[in-house]
Amino acid sequence: VVLVSPRNPLNIGASARAMANFGFANLTVVAPFAEHWREAKSAVGAPDLLKNARETTSLAEALADSTLVIGTGTLMHRNPEQPVMPLPQLAPLVADELCRGGRASIVFGPEKHGLTREDLSYCHVLVEIPTDERQPSMNLGQAVALCLYELIRSNPQNEGRHPTSQRNKEAEFKGTSAELDRLAGVIIEAMRVSDYSPRSMAKANEHDLRLILRRLQFKRGDLRRGLGLFRRILRRLQKAGPPAN
Amino acid sequence: VVLVSPRNPLNIGASARAMANFGFANLTVVAPFAEHWREAKSAVGAPDLLKNARETTSLAEALADSTLVIGTGTLMHRNPEQPVMPLPQLAPLVADELCRGGRASIVFGPEKHGLTREDLSYCHVLVEIPTDERQPSMNLGQAVALCLYELIRSNPQNEGRHPTSQRNKEAEFKGTSAELDRLAGVIIEAMRVSDYSPRSMAKANEHDLRLILRRLQFKRGDLRRGLGLFRRILRRLQKAGPPAN
Repeated sequence: VVLVSPRNPLNIGASARAMANFGFANLTVVAPFAEHWREAKSAVGAPDLLKNARETTSLAEALADSTLVIGTGTLMHRNPEQPVMPLPQLAPLVADELCRGGRASIVFGPEKHGLTREDLSYCHVLVEIPTDERQPSMNLGQAVALCLYELIRSNPQNEGRHPTSQRNKEAEFKGTSAELDRLAGVIIEAMRVSDYSPRSMAKANEHDLRLILRRLQFKRGDLRRGLGLFRRILRRLQKAGPPAN
Repeated sequence: VVLVSPRNPLNIGASARAMANFGFANLTVVAPFAEHWREAKSAVGAPDLLKNARETTSLAEALADSTLVIGTGTLMHRNPEQPVMPLPQLAPLVADELCRGGRASIVFGPEKHGLTREDLSYCHVLVEIPTDERQPSMNLGQAVALCLYELIRSNPQNEGRHPTSQRNKEAEFKGTSAELDRLAGVIIEAMRVSDYSPRSMAKANEHDLRLILRRLQFKRGDLRRGLGLFRRILRRLQKAGPPAN
């Protein structure tokens, strides 16, 4: 479970409690408000998983090891840039990933506005909680409880809790978020060096590339090859010097 | 929804909010703590259903109109005196009752100790939230959210409300085989020009690339971009001339 900049200590506590209720242990908090975060961690009865939570400054860092990243929201006002699935369909997707030895993260945004467009660009899939359109916005602690409940719902004994040990081949592994970011970095550099598009487009291209790489479901071997190819291309381009025109 | 002697105004508010989220309107509160109840009702942003909630002094009164009463809890420590069903099995039971023109109530106990044995005696069935035995006790607002979510979870209306399939329709177009081959052709050429690997590997690389491109499930837009990028790279590489070494 990854909470991005949660504000209300009660919500942080409720999220951690729901994790304990459903047997989830790994909490990461991204760029929390220091004071509220301290308060949440030191609250009476705070579960161990909250005290031991990992803290990172960026979402990219929080997701580095993840092979499947799920963004959450209630109603997507903007046009979603990746597949949206209703919450009831989430469990099989996650179970599948864990069976393959992957690592899944489910990401929740700040209370006020939810995940930003940039946050969402790190997600492979978005999950939508089927709320009423007259009152779509859910409380953070409740949203966490719902999503985790859904993950253990059909098999409280196993799912979500004990990622099956790596029983499949290396070839089946999907790349982690950090590996995808590494490939993205080289591609972006190749774009820059080859003057692929005007500088003003660089940010938008970076954003789109992040989304595309996640959608493509690279396996590790693919990533290695892609990285090798783009590094080679990059070296050649750099040797060639700046464009002649 | 019937809350028996809820204490914490935040929990009352969260319960009402969850009702609004999932389209439930009728809240009854039994013997609330007067002060906390007043505070909850007057909270900023309290939904109308909370302001219009019915207040009774006894559970019997609250349930008077109900034809199906469901008691909630996390783990039943005592010997249950009526059927206990896991939460995922609740929806069909309730749907059935409503179809027959009946009226169903779902009852939640006070935060501290849950429903008493006497409270439970008003229930036709008990529903159990499948929590971890090391942390079985759930927050009231979260328990309400889970139960109501479960009731609307498989509601066919949800699909009408959130036409996810439509949203991503454009995005779902996959590239044709010919489009994939066109991209493969440019990538292979870039490999060749950049001396990506020994010539003897060319055939094997081509083969792998074809497989990889098909596995990656490119959308049309992705293909267009990939093609654009590799063409640009290729032009630059060609301009640079043969490798210096």
